[in-house]
Amino acid sequence: MTASQPRPPKAILFDTFGTVVDWRTSLIDDLSAYAATRNITADWPALVDAWRANYAPSMDRVRKGEQPWTNLDDLHRATLDALIERMNIQSLTETDHDHINRGWHRLKPWPDAIPGLTRLKQKFTIAPLSNGNVALLLNMAKHAGVPWDMICAADLFQHYKPDPETYLGAAALLGLQPGEVMMAAAHNGDLHAARSCGLQTAFFPRVTEYGPLQSRDYTAEGPFTIVARDIEDLATQLGA
Amino acid sequence: MTASQPRPPKAILFDTFGTVVDWRTSLIDDLSAYAATRNITADWPALVDAWRANYAPSMDRVRKGEQPWTNLDDLHRATLDALIERMNIQSLTETDHDHINRGWHRLKPWPDAIPGLTRLKQKFTIAPLSNGNVALLLNMAKHAGVPWDMICAADLFQHYKPDPETYLGAAALLGLQPGEVMMAAAHNGDLHAARSCGLQTAFFPRVTEYGPLQSRDYTAEGPFTIVARDIEDLATQLGA
Repeated sequence: MTASQPRPPKAILFDTFGTVVDWRTSLIDDLSAYAATRNITADWPALVDAWRANYAPSMDRVRKGEQPWTNLDDLHRATLDALIERMNIQSLTETDHDHINRGWHRLKPWPDAIPGLTRLKQKFTIAPLSNGNVALLLNMAKHAGVPWDMICAADLFQHYKPDPETYLGAAALLGLQPGEVMMAAAHNGDLHAARSCGLQTAFFPRVTEYGPLQSRDYTAEGPFTIVARDIEDLATQLGA
Repeated sequence: MTASQPRPPKAILFDTFGTVVDWRTSLIDDLSAYAATRNITADWPALVDAWRANYAPSMDRVRKGEQPWTNLDDLHRATLDALIERMNIQSLTETDHDHINRGWHRLKPWPDAIPGLTRLKQKFTIAPLSNGNVALLLNMAKHAGVPWDMICAADLFQHYKPDPETYLGAAALLGLQPGEVMMAAAHNGDLHAARSCGLQTAFFPRVTEYGPLQSRDYTAEGPFTIVARDIEDLATQLGA
């Protein structure tokens, strides 16, 4: 650390989808394998990409008050049901829809995530700060072995990122000042919002997150506290 | 498990003060050692016992609406300040008061707690369900190495146990039905309240919790799902 940098944070909050887990590859693999057991064929990558494309718009309806508070599992499910109908995928039961929707609970971490988080946990409090709900993030952590100290999730604040209530609410729950908390993400927009709330920031890129549809977040676009290669490199830069 | 018992729970919530950590011995030791470094003498066991004696009454004022929501760190601090004045303990600074109050963040687990929880975590989601606030429980877990999956704390619900909002709120956050959750505690009253909300229950005694002032909770006084010797025995009975 150079003299111009702030004091090390006491807690690090991680964006989760894309930053800690590879949602796209995980969901395509999970869905393809499940569909094979049911002898159902469809363009699963197209479904997954369309599902994620509706992620921000569905939360924005809640953020703008056009829809009462709805957690991410329920937003995911509404989008999934609409897509299955629009893509005319036949013979999926209610049980199938539920199982597919819970694919978000079974996402797999990027290779550096568990080793990096395990190192950081020795020195810092680590938690997700995600638009997922507690149950989703908890099941994901149990499934993938993510060693979180606490789960900070949108349903605790009844707000979705980038609303300031999420960043400031998480710092308050942890009993810390915003400047004692670092937000880590592979997304510039998330970090700009966190920085506006006074949090420290760490960026590392996930250049294959959106597969062939990736169009941004190849590089840090702001005066972030730390720019790293991945979570292992973040641990190294923070002396963990 | 016999045929008459319910299906195993998916998550186990633990009362914390007294059930997982030995607050009385920890606080007396912590306070005595700290006071020795400051050359301040007082009847520290008496202070700790009086501090805890005001625990339920202070929360009851919040539960009855006589006082707006106040987290446990702040309730503890108000009681501590009053006791230091009443006991006429001299020359403690603001920093000292803050350090002493944070003794609750440094409580030590009973000997069976970490081994038992580590076993249970392999098979179940484990979390505290405590009247402590998130920051207190998180710092305690980091300090003592308690391997929680999530922190369920009173400030998430803005209610103190035994209000049903705590038991039902925790089950909802975990995405589970009340009957899929087990409340574990060394206190009959906590378990009666949890049972009224439909949770499974596990009792094990902590017969030295209150030292010479112990007057109850020597044994299970209700039709609880499981009665165990301690957390290791609970793990054994649940096949973990």
